Amino acid sequence: MQEFSEFESLLCRPSSEKNLEFQRHGRLKHIIAASQLTPPLLDKLCRSAELIRRMNRHPDGNRRLRGLLAHKRAMLYFTQPSTRTFLSFMAACQILGIACNEVRDPKTSSEVKRESKMDSIRMFSSYFDVIIMRSQIADFAECCAYLMNDLERQERRSVPIINAGAGSDEHPTQALLDMYTIIRTFDFDENSDSRPSRLNALRQTYPGLTPGPSHKTYAFCGDIGRGRTVRSLATVLSQYEGVKLVFVSPQHEVLVMDDELRQRLKASGAEVHEFNSLDAELGGSSLLGQIDCLYMTRIQREHNSSDTEREISEIDLEPFRLSVERVGKLKQYTPIMHPFPRDCVVGEIPTEIDSDPRAMYFRQARNGMWARAALLVHLFDEADSLYFAYSDVNRSRV
Amino acid sequence: MQEFSEFESLLCRPSSEKNLEFQRHGRLKHIIAASQLTPPLLDKLCRSAELIRRMNRHPDGNRRLRGLLAHKRAMLYFTQPSTRTFLSFMAACQILGIACNEVRDPKTSSEVKRESKMDSIRMFSSYFDVIIMRSQIADFAECCAYLMNDLERQERRSVPIINAGAGSDEHPTQALLDMYTIIRTFDFDENSDSRPSRLNALRQTYPGLTPGPSHKTYAFCGDIGRGRTVRSLATVLSQYEGVKLVFVSPQHEVLVMDDELRQRLKASGAEVHEFNSLDAELGGSSLLGQIDCLYMTRIQREHNSSDTEREISEIDLEPFRLSVERVGKLKQYTPIMHPFPRDCVVGEIPTEIDSDPRAMYFRQARNGMWARAALLVHLFDEADSLYFAYSDVNRSRV
Amino acid sequence: MQEFSEFESLLCRPSSEKNLEFQRHGRLKHIIAASQLTPPLLDKLCRSAELIRRMNRHPDGNRRLRGLLAHKRAMLYFTQPSTRTFLSFMAACQILGIACNEVRDPKTSSEVKRESKMDSIRMFSSYFDVIIMRSQIADFAECCAYLMNDLERQERRSVPIINAGAGSDEHPTQALLDMYTIIRTFDFDENSDSRPSRLNALRQTYPGLTPGPSHKTYAFCGDIGRGRTVRSLATVLSQYEGVKLVFVSPQHEVLVMDDELRQRLKASGAEVHEFNSLDAELGGSSLLGQIDCLYMTRIQREHNSSDTEREISEIDLEPFRLSVERVGKLKQYTPIMHPFPRDCVVGEIPTEIDSDPRAMYFRQARNGMWARAALLVHLFDEADSLYFAYSDVNRSRV
Repeated sequence: MQEFSEFESLLCRPSSEKNLEFQRHGRLKHIIAASQLTPPLLDKLCRSAELIRRMNRHPDGNRRLRGLLAHKRAMLYFTQPSTRTFLSFMAACQILGIACNEVRDPKTSSEVKRESKMDSIRMFSSYFDVIIMRSQIADFAECCAYLMNDLERQERRSVPIINAGAGSDEHPTQALLDMYTIIRTFDFDENSDSRPSRLNALRQTYPGLTPGPSHKTYAFCGDIGRGRTVRSLATVLSQYEGVKLVFVSPQHEVLVMDDELRQRLKASGAEVHEFNSLDAELGGSSLLGQIDCLYMTRIQREHNSSDTEREISEIDLEPFRLSVERVGKLKQYTPIMHPFPRDCVVGEIPTEIDSDPRAMYFRQARNGMWARAALLVHLFDEADSLYFAYSDVNRSRV
Repeated sequence: MQEFSEFESLLCRPSSEKNLEFQRHGRLKHIIAASQLTPPLLDKLCRSAELIRRMNRHPDGNRRLRGLLAHKRAMLYFTQPSTRTFLSFMAACQILGIACNEVRDPKTSSEVKRESKMDSIRMFSSYFDVIIMRSQIADFAECCAYLMNDLERQERRSVPIINAGAGSDEHPTQALLDMYTIIRTFDFDENSDSRPSRLNALRQTYPGLTPGPSHKTYAFCGDIGRGRTVRSLATVLSQYEGVKLVFVSPQHEVLVMDDELRQRLKASGAEVHEFNSLDAELGGSSLLGQIDCLYMTRIQREHNSSDTEREISEIDLEPFRLSVERVGKLKQYTPIMHPFPRDCVVGEIPTEIDSDPRAMYFRQARNGMWARAALLVHLFDEADSLYFAYSDVNRSRV
Repeated sequence: MQEFSEFESLLCRPSSEKNLEFQRHGRLKHIIAASQLTPPLLDKLCRSAELIRRMNRHPDGNRRLRGLLAHKRAMLYFTQPSTRTFLSFMAACQILGIACNEVRDPKTSSEVKRESKMDSIRMFSSYFDVIIMRSQIADFAECCAYLMNDLERQERRSVPIINAGAGSDEHPTQALLDMYTIIRTFDFDENSDSRPSRLNALRQTYPGLTPGPSHKTYAFCGDIGRGRTVRSLATVLSQYEGVKLVFVSPQHEVLVMDDELRQRLKASGAEVHEFNSLDAELGGSSLLGQIDCLYMTRIQREHNSSDTEREISEIDLEPFRLSVERVGKLKQYTPIMHPFPRDCVVGEIPTEIDSDPRAMYFRQARNGMWARAALLVHLFDEADSLYFAYSDVNRSRV
């Protein structure tokens, strides 16, 4: 985009260099890319998410949470349509008492009046305390972060930018909520009050099982090529030790993993496998029986050209669809995840799976609220207040 | 709808059987149909509405109300356009401190992605604590209630469903606010501090007058055939003792009462009369002089086929229009109600009636807030907290 | 409009007579026209705005502000598209704890059902405590104020009306925020804690400089003919003593000042000058070097007919564009204002000016929140509570 020309030279740097500018003393200033989500930061954010989730159950904790950021006002600037991510952020803001405002029409009246995109963003930053944005334009959120950094250097008003999905590339808060779901699942209730330990019971059947995301096999199934959630989550997971990443997709050029991602994941040390059926074998035995986490996705038809649409409509999608039989082959604890929405015509997850205790996709959606609330607390540097409020509420409940 | 096929067998049961599933120990879990509004329940809800209305007048009461459900978040899912009902529910939520969220576009982005309606509802129930929904699809709200009941049985997250208008059939919360207006009017200020009693004064002229909705004559005028508010309210009123129901409409097949409603009202023991002019006589004297409550409605042209439109446009609507002269024939206390909007071209209630003390339609709209707030308090089982807060506020004000 | 016929005779009265009906004992009941903003009232409102701005900086003050009008609910009825004014009012409401509701679609469902505009307004006044409205229809807000006054006389429910922009004529709250920016700027930090006095320092270079809006030269540049903000602000400024008003615009009939405004400003005693370039001379020396405040505006193409569009596109706009060189000629303290959005194609203010300390346009936007919040406090007669809360917070912080 011509408008972003002043930031062009910044955009093409390696992410390690860029990420330094989106943080300050190890705390995030902006969240732009999934690569900012390092294991130690994820630990912190997931601990906060867990506190928020628990506090929210009780009237007193709920009330304390609503006071935590009640002095803040958010702009949800969603020019790319989205119901789920939008509502999840709204709910997260409401949990923390943040007042919400929205601009969702891609044609705001100001753009009709030839206002530049950057002036719109500065207007938002004049009125509001955080900008949560989703856009078709891949680098828009990143450029906004640079604009805010420039303003900060000039000692002018500057606010945090949250990338809530940009182009086909990045969706870092989806990766965050997915990681929260994974970390919560692979905690095996160790941190809850339930006894006897669920982990010990599972170890009778799966002797080598350890808590945490490391040393696990993750399978992604469906639209690997265009799923920005797959791209973001796989990138984050590849940072953990001993991780195997398995990708199952039809062999159509837009649906298979692109080479850039493949190279990047391998470079980070992860073991990468690709298959074209959920019934494939890995190392001589059934793939389904070996995976610790199954991440299903929808074939994203809305991005298809008419040619691609025709080609894909001829593919037999049966090998990429769950069934009661296939679910039966999974390990007892393997969570079935899906970023949702699922396609009710294709039926990659039929509704009869919904009542299986491993079906995690609705809880995963709900986890999005807690994870995004934790992110907001972190960005406003109120994690300490959260911990203080939590212990306060717990003391008074004992 | 194909999507609702799993609930089809449940939909065709008699309402007495269905209503049992929308309640628990006599308290509503969901509000789907006007037939759930029994006289004892209406008594309870109207008492709560009255407390809310009074508390709201004073800063301290207002503040307590805003704390009552501040830990709840509502989804207003209005895919059928509606300004009035939507705003009334928003205001009701705000009075109680409930955080509001809305989806109003019939084409949410998720439906474009082929998400099933039931998945959308489960998403809403993941993020929010109550779903207030208005839809073109007659049985949608009812099916959502069944889905929630299923989830409850599976010990999964489940939330109350409020039907805020479905198809052409049901509008139970309109019936609730109408009944609150009727009960408040026919209380004749007995429960207020005003002395001397208004009821005693009126009895000088109307010796047999008693408080409450029983033993009264209710006239409905206008579009009887398609007015879902008429259908809902008449059904509720027919449960009271000694009630006469009078219907005044043009003799066009889409505008007169349908046979199903006629039979149902008669079966419940109400006396039913039908006329084709407000100037009709009942038992040898003027109808207008005998009615205790006059419920005007708008001819709903937006549902007309072009044939019907032409036919109706040829009807003389003068006999179904109020005038100063006709209002002059009403009893001193007879409230003039209208669910609004009124048609400013047809003019079924000309604006010169607005300053008559019996013109109740704007107060009726305002009553909608209190009645809907009372319903929310009831659904969340916080009526006791409301009573406690009320007495608390009153004590501190003495 | 036919609907407003009952108020027609009221509309054509002189503003001095009309304004009396929009106030009560010197306090505004409604804000309809910029001519209601007298210097003493502006003093009051700007003092309140300043308190709100300062209180908002600290958690405790912020919390007190959010309690100030938490018992109120606002309707933002914006049928003419507007992002900036809308968001500014939303933020102002949120600062004071006012719950917001909006109707932005020009075709509400009720209008489809042939509801009159006045019935819509009465519906809003049934549910909400203030109506903030922006409309294409020039006299709509004024008629709503008359309707509310009528209701008040009948002892029925009545709420304040705020005109947030009507037709091409009036935008009184923009004039209010512009005046707050001017008054704040020409206070020269006298009321802040910064020492030594900035005013004294400036007087070394500009000996005659006095604080306050009087005895100053104001230049307006760009679209004078159609800028309702120019019209509103110039009208307000003309009430101050010793004011020179300079208008710089292309010599096209739709862009120059209309005669009615010219006569009105002169009648009020202001010195009025008109030029067709920012490089013009006034009294033999450079205009730019003499002005105390520069108000830039955008050429409003969206109102152009195709003929006008063609004519204007042939005008050389260079003489009406800021540049680093032109800014260099301004006095050290001269604020550069713009009601925004600016046109990023025409570039009446190029972005390289943004980092100049005199560039006031982003702060001006932010001032809109404080000024509008102050207006809401005034309309609800809570200025005393604001002062009390301010001193309370200050005491506890010392």
